[in-house]
Amino acid sequence: MSQRIVVALGGNALGHNLDEQYQAVRQTAAAIAGLIAAGHQVVIAHGNGPQVGMIQQAMAELTRLDPVRYIPCPLSVCVAMSQGYIGYDLQNALRETLLNQGLPAAVSTVLTQVEVDPQDPAFCHPTKPIGAFMTEEEAKAMVEQRSYTVMEDAGRGWRRVVASPKPKAIVELDTIATLVEAGQVVIACGGGGIPVVREEKHHLKGAPAVIDKDFAAGLLAESLGADWLIILTAVEKVAIRYRQPGETWLDRLTPAEAEAYAAAGEFAPGSMLPKVQAAARFARSAPGRVALITQLNRALDGMAGLTGTRIQA
Amino acid sequence: MSQRIVVALGGNALGHNLDEQYQAVRQTAAAIAGLIAAGHQVVIAHGNGPQVGMIQQAMAELTRLDPVRYIPCPLSVCVAMSQGYIGYDLQNALRETLLNQGLPAAVSTVLTQVEVDPQDPAFCHPTKPIGAFMTEEEAKAMVEQRSYTVMEDAGRGWRRVVASPKPKAIVELDTIATLVEAGQVVIACGGGGIPVVREEKHHLKGAPAVIDKDFAAGLLAESLGADWLIILTAVEKVAIRYRQPGETWLDRLTPAEAEAYAAAGEFAPGSMLPKVQAAARFARSAPGRVALITQLNRALDGMAGLTGTRIQA
Repeated sequence: MSQRIVVALGGNALGHNLDEQYQAVRQTAAAIAGLIAAGHQVVIAHGNGPQVGMIQQAMAELTRLDPVRYIPCPLSVCVAMSQGYIGYDLQNALRETLLNQGLPAAVSTVLTQVEVDPQDPAFCHPTKPIGAFMTEEEAKAMVEQRSYTVMEDAGRGWRRVVASPKPKAIVELDTIATLVEAGQVVIACGGGGIPVVREEKHHLKGAPAVIDKDFAAGLLAESLGADWLIILTAVEKVAIRYRQPGETWLDRLTPAEAEAYAAAGEFAPGSMLPKVQAAARFARSAPGRVALITQLNRALDGMAGLTGTRIQA
Repeated sequence: MSQRIVVALGGNALGHNLDEQYQAVRQTAAAIAGLIAAGHQVVIAHGNGPQVGMIQQAMAELTRLDPVRYIPCPLSVCVAMSQGYIGYDLQNALRETLLNQGLPAAVSTVLTQVEVDPQDPAFCHPTKPIGAFMTEEEAKAMVEQRSYTVMEDAGRGWRRVVASPKPKAIVELDTIATLVEAGQVVIACGGGGIPVVREEKHHLKGAPAVIDKDFAAGLLAESLGADWLIILTAVEKVAIRYRQPGETWLDRLTPAEAEAYAAAGEFAPGSMLPKVQAAARFARSAPGRVALITQLNRALDGMAGLTGTRIQA
């Protein structure tokens, strides 16, 4: 039976630079085409950590070279650029893959703003890594020269971290829903969406933040009345005691079990933690909704119950 | 009577940097809201000369700093980024203006690719100015250091020029049409569209070019079956012998008259010439179609016949 699926793609589905992205989106497109070939309706949300970091660095260089002409480029504007940068490659790879399989190939990218709460405590505690990995020395230089907040990221090196407030509402939801109803494959909420706060007289102001793409994808799935939220990542399943003695891979969780493990500190912040939290929230949002966390190329197997971690009430 | 209108916005509607853009889109939004308040269906295409030049320069700096990690960013990718950069500000300003007037405010930006012919002779003769204005000295340095082609732009300084092939087809036309039919105000073909050439196995390859936004807007208007193509610019009307003795402002032209003046060299390449050519082509494409070239804030007056240059068969 045709299911409405929101797929959340992480860094490994997109690569870390232009070269890697061009290659990575081909694998990603093949995986997503599999879901479409099986008759499902697919909406794609994706992250942008490395990409928005790259764009932000490029724009900062421009300001450094010519500060009169170019004011510093706000992070929200960099997110908007990253939606164009990633959406272009991703929609093309998917369009090409679908056409080569004889499938309908109306794929589109909708520039998406996502509202956040200006009082969100996340603004006081930056946690979201963006940009390239740095050595400890490079990271310390960025702290001194540009007042960045940096942190060590899951054993992979140092990165800049920015605020990651929770998404509250998707500004372009009607646009996305209209296209989904018309049978299009829609790429939306790129990089978690352009973060904006609502001000008076209907003004939306860009926020210096990057919204977690898993939470944004979860909100998108809820708002579109999706049946499935599928979070694709580098591992087949969620584990507790990950990379420690007694590591245990999980097949099925209730939202309550998932949240209990999350509260117990089983999952890395900025990595598996938001995935599990977003999955639990979606699974709990309405009867019959299923969240699945699995590896990029195992989505269909995961839906069939053959692999992945399924979170369901 | 409600008309379907494609509006083409030029540089003066968007400004030359982030600061200017933020201010300029407010004026632009007010002008476009006027058309919507009058009951018309509006689709917006826009240029990106200064913006894509800025992004291209920023990305080139990044490559210079870290050539191993960041390969040179193709111009097509910079155009994709510019669609996010401009669309974000423009859709927000328009959304806010419409809401403040109590009008429906479903405004969206669709990432748009436009197919060009790889054999287009334009690839051998770059004519499209992008990026910031330079002094003659700065321009000559860019020619030496980066093999840019540069030219003097209508008395305003020197700029880099790139190939500007003619648009052949809009890849995301169905997406745009679906949203227009659903009553949305759509921003599409930003910067003339991401230029792509069709290769085998349905592959679309980015082209090192920037498509003229007036030609792209004209093709969009034709493809959507629009009633009007309104090209908004810095002057109220088209002139012959512009800024010369005998300067004459034109109220009405047939497509044949417009093309004859164009062939006689009356209009500046990269400035008024493509506007007049796009207008003539659209006006000739089907009975009843009208093209209008006028100043940003005079669009409604122009439709009423009070100002502007109207091109009509």
